[in-house]
Amino acid sequence: MEAAIKLFSNNGYNKASVDEICAEAGISKGAFYHHFKSKQELFLALLDGWLQTIDSAIEAAKDLPAPKTFTRMTEAFPYIFETAGDGLPMFLEFWLQASRDKKIWEASIAPYRRYHKHFTSLIKKGVEEGSFVEVDPELASRMIVSTAMGLLLQSLLDPKGAKWEKVARDSTNMLVDGLLKR
Amino acid sequence: MEAAIKLFSNNGYNKASVDEICAEAGISKGAFYHHFKSKQELFLALLDGWLQTIDSAIEAAKDLPAPKTFTRMTEAFPYIFETAGDGLPMFLEFWLQASRDKKIWEASIAPYRRYHKHFTSLIKKGVEEGSFVEVDPELASRMIVSTAMGLLLQSLLDPKGAKWEKVARDSTNMLVDGLLKR
Repeated sequence: MEAAIKLFSNNGYNKASVDEICAEAGISKGAFYHHFKSKQELFLALLDGWLQTIDSAIEAAKDLPAPKTFTRMTEAFPYIFETAGDGLPMFLEFWLQASRDKKIWEASIAPYRRYHKHFTSLIKKGVEEGSFVEVDPELASRMIVSTAMGLLLQSLLDPKGAKWEKVARDSTNMLVDGLLKR
Repeated sequence: MEAAIKLFSNNGYNKASVDEICAEAGISKGAFYHHFKSKQELFLALLDGWLQTIDSAIEAAKDLPAPKTFTRMTEAFPYIFETAGDGLPMFLEFWLQASRDKKIWEASIAPYRRYHKHFTSLIKKGVEEGSFVEVDPELASRMIVSTAMGLLLQSLLDPKGAKWEKVARDSTNMLVDGLLKR
């Protein structure tokens, strides 16, 4: 998978062949096809692996009161921004593939829809438990997912433009602050 | 420029040649080079043209009180989301080029930095004129630009996932609501 990231980033998804990935990783094609049915499946496994960290952070925080869930999530930020670091060409290749291939598109769109659902129920819970002011949970959730995507995209496009991980943490705190009932 | 958008979106930036763009547009190569020095310059002109609408909306609102500036800006949203509509492959191609070419990268990063500066001073102004609560203008501006980028990206990736233009308008109102001093 490391060999694939390297080749996809340097040469693009289309140009990188299974042969080259195997050569780079020092494994046989038999070994490759034992784990992945195709280059596409490897590609989807890479995305899944990366999203797993975000999902685990969400899962670990799920029994806490809603405001604490957000704080707990920020603990995953260093990993997220660090691994996203040099991944811009890789991410863009991925989205470009997604825009041209229905299966990849569905796999790449599913997480955003999942996060949207997740934050909608988290905010609903916060309102019900009396921690949060009355807001439209759907809308607030859209804003959270959008802010997260925008921050991640900017950290990819302009890594030196700001301390993105700190901006993400401060933004989360500002957001929770805005939601808290006083 | 319409011919270029069509070819860039369908075939990718790299594959679309000046010859093909000229054939598609029904113009001579002489006419092309009268307007653009290179394919790259045409590409940058496309980005500029699209961003011009956002800049004009910001410019038109600049003498209003800060909260009204935001409301005025939402009037540009229908155009922004409509034109972004089928542009996903085009945008992705653009960013992919940007990640591999310093000149395009600088041109594509400049607007975000400009918007960040703009919203920072707008929020500062709002705090000074007494409309907005005391917030960190730098941070609030980062959140606004991030939310905008995230919404736009989601509208490109998942056009049918929500009514993005409405979400953008409601988000702006929610944001201004959160900033308003009561």
